[in-house]
Amino acid sequence: MKRRIKLLLSYDGTNYAGWQIQTRQPHVQTIQGNIEQALAIITKGEEIRVFGAGRTDAGVHARGQVCHFDLQSSIPIERLPVAINSVLPRDIRCHSGEEVEGDFHAQHSAKLKTYSYLINQSYIPDVFLRYYAHHEPYPLNLQAMMEAGGLLVGTKDFQGFSAAGGSQKDYIRTITELKIEKFNDKILINVTGDGFLYNMVRIIAGTLIEIGRGKMPIKIIEEIIITRDRLLAGPTAAAKGLCLEKIIY
Amino acid sequence: MKRRIKLLLSYDGTNYAGWQIQTRQPHVQTIQGNIEQALAIITKGEEIRVFGAGRTDAGVHARGQVCHFDLQSSIPIERLPVAINSVLPRDIRCHSGEEVEGDFHAQHSAKLKTYSYLINQSYIPDVFLRYYAHHEPYPLNLQAMMEAGGLLVGTKDFQGFSAAGGSQKDYIRTITELKIEKFNDKILINVTGDGFLYNMVRIIAGTLIEIGRGKMPIKIIEEIIITRDRLLAGPTAAAKGLCLEKIIY
Repeated sequence: MKRRIKLLLSYDGTNYAGWQIQTRQPHVQTIQGNIEQALAIITKGEEIRVFGAGRTDAGVHARGQVCHFDLQSSIPIERLPVAINSVLPRDIRCHSGEEVEGDFHAQHSAKLKTYSYLINQSYIPDVFLRYYAHHEPYPLNLQAMMEAGGLLVGTKDFQGFSAAGGSQKDYIRTITELKIEKFNDKILINVTGDGFLYNMVRIIAGTLIEIGRGKMPIKIIEEIIITRDRLLAGPTAAAKGLCLEKIIY
Repeated sequence: MKRRIKLLLSYDGTNYAGWQIQTRQPHVQTIQGNIEQALAIITKGEEIRVFGAGRTDAGVHARGQVCHFDLQSSIPIERLPVAINSVLPRDIRCHSGEEVEGDFHAQHSAKLKTYSYLINQSYIPDVFLRYYAHHEPYPLNLQAMMEAGGLLVGTKDFQGFSAAGGSQKDYIRTITELKIEKFNDKILINVTGDGFLYNMVRIIAGTLIEIGRGKMPIKIIEEIIITRDRLLAGPTAAAKGLCLEKIIY
């Protein structure tokens, strides 16, 4: 009788080609691949497929990624995090594990997700943030960014904020909260929503930065939503500034 | 006519064998070696010896290292940081440069130095601090650590807090301030003094951690100072938690 298991994970995405196993490039390091390999080791050979709540891209980090899988092994659930951590590389950590109902799905059962995007505003890049923040030395108008951010909150068609080539037909998503905070020379954008299109948070960050620099007007947000035109939005901000913070079920 | 130049530097010490060039191992990466190499490149071959304010060990970081050297090249001083940064690896940055009096010495002219020591208290190590903090998951009594820290402030003989084998004869140093702050699951120790013996801040940190865990009494500090016995002090805390924050001249 298999048990369905839910894990809470954090990782530094710097050295990974993203969450998802690259079937065409099996030697590429991925988070999913490392979790599956760790499970194979501690179960002595069980072939386990792991499903993540968010398929983070190469270089994207996570403090609150969640995954699920079905486990045959009778290993006690309370020992699972320690066992997994003992074989995982040190830039991936399992924080907790629990048995969940058989219909739980890390991605489909998620109600809300929070991502953060970090901007380093110091003139010379902060060496300690070189893999964790987008460096933007030019002054940013925080008030304008906050106003623009407010226009993104609600249930809207976010096609204009998604990368071309996505396969989905439904671009309607709900952003429940968008917060922008400044700590010394760091600006942190926190976005919570019921789901995000491909590259959506990075395009939102890139657009808010353009607005902060005064290169785009605040009202461009409404135009992008109405026209659904990706070309009106700002660039896709660098992957390294993005972090999957939390999944709420 | 050579000019004496003072630079302000930051670096992530993770990938370096410390500040100082290893003359016996010339292929080892050091901060000093990289600065000298960068200067050789931008001056088209000048052989420049660089003197640092603090000889940080392997894995130790800096936000406020200062160095000096004598420069023959007529490159404008205001262009120096950008020129140096263009050839330095991205984990070392030059923040500013200025011409100083010919008798300025980065180490000998320093009046006060501030080091920080970071402790990660989360049960599972924070992946983002794996190179920047000592992981100590057991509860620490902050009040006891602060009391013990207070006993270190003043002009005292710190031989008991220095690594054996140091060549100096004078172990009297003055600690002007020792602050301990807690932010969520991080504890930050900040120590300012007129100079530090070899490994002194790391041994202080290691001793304060033992006191915080209740393994040593607060009054051990006074005993170590009176007896000058290194064996009474705690272990040398990991290099990665240490950061040279500031030099005051």
